[in-house]
Amino acid sequence: MMTHALAGEQTRLVSGSTSRSRPNGRRISKRSKVVIATVISIGLLLALVHLAFPSTFALRSTPNKKKNVIFFVTDGMGPASLSMARSFNQHIHDLPIDDILMLDQHFIGSSRTRSSDSLVTDSAAGATAFACALKSYNGAIGVDPHQTPCGTVLEAAKLAGYFTGLVVTTRITDATPASFSSHADFRWQEDLIATHQLGEYPLGRMVDLLMGGGRTHFYPQGSDASPYGHQGSRKDGRDLIDEAQSNGWQYVGDRKSFDSLLNAHGDNVTLPLLGLFADNDIPFEIDRDEKEYPSLKEQVSVALKALEKASDEDEDSNGFFLMVEGSRIDHAGHQNDPASQVREVLAFDEAFQYVLEFAKNSDTETVLVSTSDHETGGLVTSRQITASYPEYVWYPQVLANATHSGEFLKKKLVDFVHDLGATGKLENFIKHEILERDLGIFDYTDDDVNTLIHLGDNANAIQEKLNDMVSFRAQIGWTTHGHSAVDVNIYAYTNRKTTWSRILEKLQGNHENTEIGQFLADYLELNLNKVTDLIRDTKHSLNFSATEITNEVPHYDEYYHELST
Amino acid sequence: MMTHALAGEQTRLVSGSTSRSRPNGRRISKRSKVVIATVISIGLLLALVHLAFPSTFALRSTPNKKKNVIFFVTDGMGPASLSMARSFNQHIHDLPIDDILMLDQHFIGSSRTRSSDSLVTDSAAGATAFACALKSYNGAIGVDPHQTPCGTVLEAAKLAGYFTGLVVTTRITDATPASFSSHADFRWQEDLIATHQLGEYPLGRMVDLLMGGGRTHFYPQGSDASPYGHQGSRKDGRDLIDEAQSNGWQYVGDRKSFDSLLNAHGDNVTLPLLGLFADNDIPFEIDRDEKEYPSLKEQVSVALKALEKASDEDEDSNGFFLMVEGSRIDHAGHQNDPASQVREVLAFDEAFQYVLEFAKNSDTETVLVSTSDHETGGLVTSRQITASYPEYVWYPQVLANATHSGEFLKKKLVDFVHDLGATGKLENFIKHEILERDLGIFDYTDDDVNTLIHLGDNANAIQEKLNDMVSFRAQIGWTTHGHSAVDVNIYAYTNRKTTWSRILEKLQGNHENTEIGQFLADYLELNLNKVTDLIRDTKHSLNFSATEITNEVPHYDEYYHELST
Repeated sequence: MMTHALAGEQTRLVSGSTSRSRPNGRRISKRSKVVIATVISIGLLLALVHLAFPSTFALRSTPNKKKNVIFFVTDGMGPASLSMARSFNQHIHDLPIDDILMLDQHFIGSSRTRSSDSLVTDSAAGATAFACALKSYNGAIGVDPHQTPCGTVLEAAKLAGYFTGLVVTTRITDATPASFSSHADFRWQEDLIATHQLGEYPLGRMVDLLMGGGRTHFYPQGSDASPYGHQGSRKDGRDLIDEAQSNGWQYVGDRKSFDSLLNAHGDNVTLPLLGLFADNDIPFEIDRDEKEYPSLKEQVSVALKALEKASDEDEDSNGFFLMVEGSRIDHAGHQNDPASQVREVLAFDEAFQYVLEFAKNSDTETVLVSTSDHETGGLVTSRQITASYPEYVWYPQVLANATHSGEFLKKKLVDFVHDLGATGKLENFIKHEILERDLGIFDYTDDDVNTLIHLGDNANAIQEKLNDMVSFRAQIGWTTHGHSAVDVNIYAYTNRKTTWSRILEKLQGNHENTEIGQFLADYLELNLNKVTDLIRDTKHSLNFSATEITNEVPHYDEYYHELST
Repeated sequence: MMTHALAGEQTRLVSGSTSRSRPNGRRISKRSKVVIATVISIGLLLALVHLAFPSTFALRSTPNKKKNVIFFVTDGMGPASLSMARSFNQHIHDLPIDDILMLDQHFIGSSRTRSSDSLVTDSAAGATAFACALKSYNGAIGVDPHQTPCGTVLEAAKLAGYFTGLVVTTRITDATPASFSSHADFRWQEDLIATHQLGEYPLGRMVDLLMGGGRTHFYPQGSDASPYGHQGSRKDGRDLIDEAQSNGWQYVGDRKSFDSLLNAHGDNVTLPLLGLFADNDIPFEIDRDEKEYPSLKEQVSVALKALEKASDEDEDSNGFFLMVEGSRIDHAGHQNDPASQVREVLAFDEAFQYVLEFAKNSDTETVLVSTSDHETGGLVTSRQITASYPEYVWYPQVLANATHSGEFLKKKLVDFVHDLGATGKLENFIKHEILERDLGIFDYTDDDVNTLIHLGDNANAIQEKLNDMVSFRAQIGWTTHGHSAVDVNIYAYTNRKTTWSRILEKLQGNHENTEIGQFLADYLELNLNKVTDLIRDTKHSLNFSATEITNEVPHYDEYYHELST
């Protein structure tokens, strides 16, 4: 701030002096000599100041006036998730205690997360706070507490000449990406959300790149309608992928076509780009088959390539705005699965590091901001497992021993039950395959095994039991399958070192989540209210019959489509 | 940093120009006129710079070279404790969501807390990290992992000419204050710790002010030995308070004599000062009888008065170092008592605010740093209380309704049981006195009441049940009665605005807890290793018989003397 003010002061002095120093190009008088000497002296002083602050000036003469913003959301990652993942990483790689995550190195502040109607937010209200810079109710997608659509940072950025993108690991129609790119009274209106994302609302297409899971809301219900056998769920019978391609979207729907973009030098990466790699969620990192699904880092790599290329080729472009979500940190929290969560956090940290390197090598002024919408699961890296006073420990090795998520193993076990059902074989399968081989648990009790046998094909109860067996042995505690109200961390970076504090100081310290949205808008010089005026006619309330409208929070399976993946 | 460098540059320029501008006082030549014009121009420029940075110059002419450091420890306060207390405060005072705590306004970074032998630290290793700037094992009081006494910030500060003080709300011999002012292999050697604190070790007296609870380790076992009927517990039969007074300490042991210091203008506040206001802990803020016990803020007020006066009167003094602990945030965490914890945090925040105002009004360069040693209890502001998917809520009103701690009420109930024991009367007492009147709980079940009746005089089980009734209704979760490994917050302030970043930048971001200790040492320009050399002969290991030595962690009642208060 001060550096900036000083530079401005000097600039005004210089231009003022210059205009007086050579009136009409006449002979130079003694008085003029004095003035010239003054100017030279000031010039000398300025040169010295320039030595002290080289890039205050460099910045002003930079030909590249563009700005890029990459906004990261670690959905459901509270402070404990991060310290758990960091200690896990140090443990598995035998690192010293000061070998911290890339996120840790850019820790700058914290965010208060409450929504307009509860001390504990959901992801929809959380993302709407980032997108519209206002508090709304749990479930709200880009609408204010009165269910009026609110202009988002992404929309305003697009209208101001920025390319825009969304990259996630859950459904692209899920709450976080939806809140930036659509307007809906309730988060579960995902069929509607998909149409907004493709441009079917008053503003037309505002998103240039959509990447993640969630094909289901782009295909009609019934397998016949899907050319690739995907499980569509659209109730209106439309095939939005077909429509999108007709409207000029490049579509990639599998690993092979994704790789053609990943390995390309940019020529065949065109916008708008729609990449959908799973009907619902992309599998947890711990389960991900890399032959089938890209990692978050790989998705981000293609997104940056596409957005940078488009921005470079368009001389009217002001840069790009990209939102990247580590979506499934939240799911591991909901499922109380610490072994999956540490891998989700580390996969996110890798993606963050990739973007950081991108920014460091970019000529364009670039800002990275990363935060969470809320904490999920009430995770605590400590759990009392005895009635007597607890030891002060938790054990990352237990998480290292597990090689699959509870979500993956419940399916594996239920499939086995359906195929065989013979108790003798089931017991062996549970002991040697699920517990020993997949979870690395050898100290299971007879009770553990009998419980799993008697759960039959109760998938959710099996998942709960397996995740609890891991958590218990690691001495990791959880207090809920929902969210909690703890403040979450803010991380930030800019590749402009000398103006770091001017750019990022507003994010330092403790903030309301809406202030993060306002920061994004202010940094890109966006007026969200103007966008709000443009989207009054957006269809955001569906004409549900009375029986379909409910105030009940759906079971979390309904949020996450766990049983249908 | 930059501001500072620039000011230096300009200062050199000015003196250089001035020496050339009036050579030998001769007639002023044209050339000189040019030079004078140059100087005037630069002067004008400097005046403008001065307007922009007034106190860069003011700072340089400040005659007061002293420094004061107030280091705060919020024992056991994790990120969730803080957001819980903030929301509670907003709720009870009907404040807007951006009306945050004084601590929040000075949030600057976070601290990793592990000890040398566990991912989950105890308070001894945590405080030793702050005091000696090194990692040690759980239980270590001012000794390194090899049980070698390590020089502390407090000792080094005293040796470097600073006055020193410790203010707490638990026993002054407990882990946090002990680690700054004594050296012991194990935290439970409190009889030994008290002797070190009074100067009975190689360095002599290093602490000028000791204030808090913990009289028990200053009086001999057996009530005969204590003139005031206090419950002494020293096994060596010594009366340290008597000895301290003989050695020149001013002693205040009750509210009345404390008030004579609190209300004095400084004349009768002399160092060294020993203030002990409870045999063990000062009661929780929610239970505190202000006629009997001072608040943390009041203790701090007297401490600042005493230290400032001593420092002002001693021209060789370099200022003071004061450690202030909100000790019992931790105890509320151990007991899983959210109603008590929010009041402990708010009482701490008031004390912090008081010191902040002191610093703002002080001419002496003053730094405040506040952090926690660890989180306690695995507190989560969310708790699933049903088998079905939880609502996203927690209820501060439940905490507002409670007017006493579980610790207080268990004694009240056990006393009633001992006095009467009649089940009929007991049921009424539990319902109408304990639950309705003291805890504001009216929706208790028959099961709740029957459980309490059948617990008889099992004090700890009663406390557990009462605290759980509050937590359950507030939907507050806990995962342990011990500690957890989540990072804790760092808060900081200095009354030097223009050099804020130069002073505090080392605390920004994510740090190992030892770096906070190193910050304190560096800021006061202390060499801890030199002190370590001076204290090699400290008696820190007691000659226990084999049966007394144990590796088991004591039950937490043993830490907190709950049953003996």
